Amino acid sequence: MDHFRRIGALRRKLSRAGLPGLLVTYLPDLRYLSGFTGSSAALAVTRRAVRLFTDSRYTTQAGEEVEDAQLQIVSGSPAVAAVQWLAAQPGVSRSGFDPARTTVAELARWKSELPSQLRRSFLEAIPAPYVEQLRVVKDSDERALMAEAALVGCRLFDGMLKFMRPGIAEIEVAAELEHQARLLGAEGMSFETIVASGVRSAMPHGRATAALLPRRGFVTLDFGIILRGYCSDMTRTVYLGKPSPAERKAYEAVLEAQENAVGAVAPGASCAEVDEAARSILRREGLGEAFSHSTGHGVGLEIHEPPRVGAGQSTRLVPGMVVTIEPGVYLAGQFGIRIEDMVAVTQGGSQVLTPAPKALIEL
Amino acid sequence: MDHFRRIGALRRKLSRAGLPGLLVTYLPDLRYLSGFTGSSAALAVTRRAVRLFTDSRYTTQAGEEVEDAQLQIVSGSPAVAAVQWLAAQPGVSRSGFDPARTTVAELARWKSELPSQLRRSFLEAIPAPYVEQLRVVKDSDERALMAEAALVGCRLFDGMLKFMRPGIAEIEVAAELEHQARLLGAEGMSFETIVASGVRSAMPHGRATAALLPRRGFVTLDFGIILRGYCSDMTRTVYLGKPSPAERKAYEAVLEAQENAVGAVAPGASCAEVDEAARSILRREGLGEAFSHSTGHGVGLEIHEPPRVGAGQSTRLVPGMVVTIEPGVYLAGQFGIRIEDMVAVTQGGSQVLTPAPKALIEL
Repeated sequence: MDHFRRIGALRRKLSRAGLPGLLVTYLPDLRYLSGFTGSSAALAVTRRAVRLFTDSRYTTQAGEEVEDAQLQIVSGSPAVAAVQWLAAQPGVSRSGFDPARTTVAELARWKSELPSQLRRSFLEAIPAPYVEQLRVVKDSDERALMAEAALVGCRLFDGMLKFMRPGIAEIEVAAELEHQARLLGAEGMSFETIVASGVRSAMPHGRATAALLPRRGFVTLDFGIILRGYCSDMTRTVYLGKPSPAERKAYEAVLEAQENAVGAVAPGASCAEVDEAARSILRREGLGEAFSHSTGHGVGLEIHEPPRVGAGQSTRLVPGMVVTIEPGVYLAGQFGIRIEDMVAVTQGGSQVLTPAPKALIEL
Repeated sequence: MDHFRRIGALRRKLSRAGLPGLLVTYLPDLRYLSGFTGSSAALAVTRRAVRLFTDSRYTTQAGEEVEDAQLQIVSGSPAVAAVQWLAAQPGVSRSGFDPARTTVAELARWKSELPSQLRRSFLEAIPAPYVEQLRVVKDSDERALMAEAALVGCRLFDGMLKFMRPGIAEIEVAAELEHQARLLGAEGMSFETIVASGVRSAMPHGRATAALLPRRGFVTLDFGIILRGYCSDMTRTVYLGKPSPAERKAYEAVLEAQENAVGAVAPGASCAEVDEAARSILRREGLGEAFSHSTGHGVGLEIHEPPRVGAGQSTRLVPGMVVTIEPGVYLAGQFGIRIEDMVAVTQGGSQVLTPAPKALIEL
C-alpha cells in the first residue's frame, strides 16, 4: 500500500484548509495512512512529519508494519502524547481533529493536557472528514485486494450450494461458510453472517438462528470476509424446492432492479440515480413499499463506508469507488429476497467484483 | 433479563444526580437496559417513561425483544428523535448524555435540532457512566449465561487438544475452534482468535497466521465466544513435545502467579491487590519484566469492560463482578506463556467459570 502517496494527498487537503497539523485517532483512518493494524495508537501529521504513537505491546508490530511514519512508544494515552507533540512542533499553531471520531470526553481530556494558553484554540474540528474522503476512492492496491476478497466470497457461495438442504440449521450453514472462509485465508467475517430462511427471509437483518432450512422456501445468504483488512460483502437468495409463480415473479423483479442499478453505476452518476434505478423497477412491480432500505453503501477497510447509495444522496460516483448494490423485497409473514453485488466504479463504467450466478437457483 | 429492575436502578442514580432525563445511545448500554440487539437505536429514560427509538428495519425485531420500553419507529436519526422527545416531556428540563460515548459531531447535531432556548443547557454530560456502572455487577441471569458461555469455551479447548499437532497451521486451529463454537451455539467469537505457536507465542496479541505448529514448543490459545450477547474469554498454553527445564520452570511460575491472583479475588479486595498477587510471584522468579500487561479485565456484554485488574487500580471487587485473571510472560525470540480464567466474585470469595485443566499439557 502506498502510504506515502496517501499522506501527500492528505497534506494537500490540510494545506487548502490552512491547517498546519492533524490528529488522527480513528483506527481505520490510521491504518489507511500508516499501515498499522494494532488497537491502540494515534497519528500526528504536519507539513514536515508523520509520527505514530502507540504503546509497548506494539513495538515489534509497529516496527514491521509502519514504513512511512516515525514511531514513538508511549506509556500513557497515545492520543494525548500526539496532541502534546503537535503542540510542540515549530510552526504548528493549530491542529485539526475529526469531530465525528472524537468523543466529547476525549476532546475535554486532550484540551486539559495542553498548556493553558493553547486550550481554547489549538484543537479545531475539521469541516470535512479528510481521511474518509480519501478512503472513498480506492487505489489500485486496494482494488486488487477487494477483488480478491470478493472472489473468495463467490467461492464460498458456490460451496454453500452443495451444503444447503432442508433440515440443516441456519447456524450450521453459517458455521460451514465461516469455516471455509478461514481455510481460504479470511482473517474473519466482515459482519455477522446472515442466513435467513423461509418466513425469516422477510427480515432484512436475519442473523443465522437454530431454525431449520425448510423443505420449500427462500434462503438468503448475506456475508462478507475480511482479507488483509479489506471487507467483502455479497448476498444471494436461493430457493429450496419449487417456487410458486408469485415467488418467482418477486425474485425476477428484484433481479431486474439489481441489474438495472448495477447498469446505472458509472462515473458522474449520482448515488440517488443509482438508487432510483433499482427502486423504480420495484415500484413498477408494486413492490416499492417492500423495498424498505437503501440500495447500497461503500465498502473498504470498513463494511459500511461512504457513499450511501440511497434516495436523496447527491454524491456523484468517481472511478475507484466500490459500492454494494443490494435491493431487496420483504413481505412480512411470507418471504424476502435480496441480491447484492460489490461493484467498482471504473473509467469506462463499472466492474462487478462478485460474479456469482444470480438467476434463481433451485436446490 | 430483568430490564425493569435495571431501569429502576438507573432511575435511582439519575434521581441522586438531580437529572430528570437520560439519553442512551451506546448499543451495549441500550441492550442492557432494553433487550434490543439491533444496530441503530436510542433510548430515552425519564422518571415516568422509557422509550426506544429505532428505524423501520427493526420494527418486528424490536417488538419481539423489547418488553419494558415504549417503541417509536422513526425515519431519521433515532438519537435526534430521542433528544426531541425528551425535550418535549413535561418536567424534563435537562437530560444527561454520556460524554465517553458521544462524539463531538453528534452532540453538535443534537443541539442544533433542539429549540434554540434549549440548545445551551438542555443536554448535560453525566459525571459518571451510570449504565456502565450498573453493568459492572452482573445479575443472576447474566452470571448464569456467562457461566454457560465459559463452559462452552472449556469444551472447545478440550476438543482442540485432540486437533492440535505439529504441522497444522495456526489458522486451521482457529478455523476448527470457531467452527465448533458455532455448532455449540455461539453467535460469534468475542475477539479475533489468538493461536500463537513457537516463537510467536512471545507476542501477547499473536493472531492466528499461516505459521505451522512446531514439532516442539508452546502454543497459546486465547479465545472467546458470544452466547446470547455475552462474551467468554479464556487462555491456555500447551506444549508440543517435551519442554526444556527452563520452559517448564517458566510455565510453573505463570501458573503459580495465576492461581495466586485467582485466590486473591474476593469482595473487598482491590484490583491492584489482585494484580500484585500475580505480579509478585513473577517478580520473585525474575520474570517481572516479562509480564508486560495488566492481570485482567471485566467482561460481560463487551469483551473488555471495567474494572481493569492492574497496578494502581483502586476499584474494590464486589459480588457479581466477573473478571479475567490472565498473567503471562513473553520472552522475545524464545517463547511466551499465558493462562487465563474467567472468575466471578461471589459473597464468599470467588468462582472460576472456566474449569479447564491448567497443569502443563504435553501433546
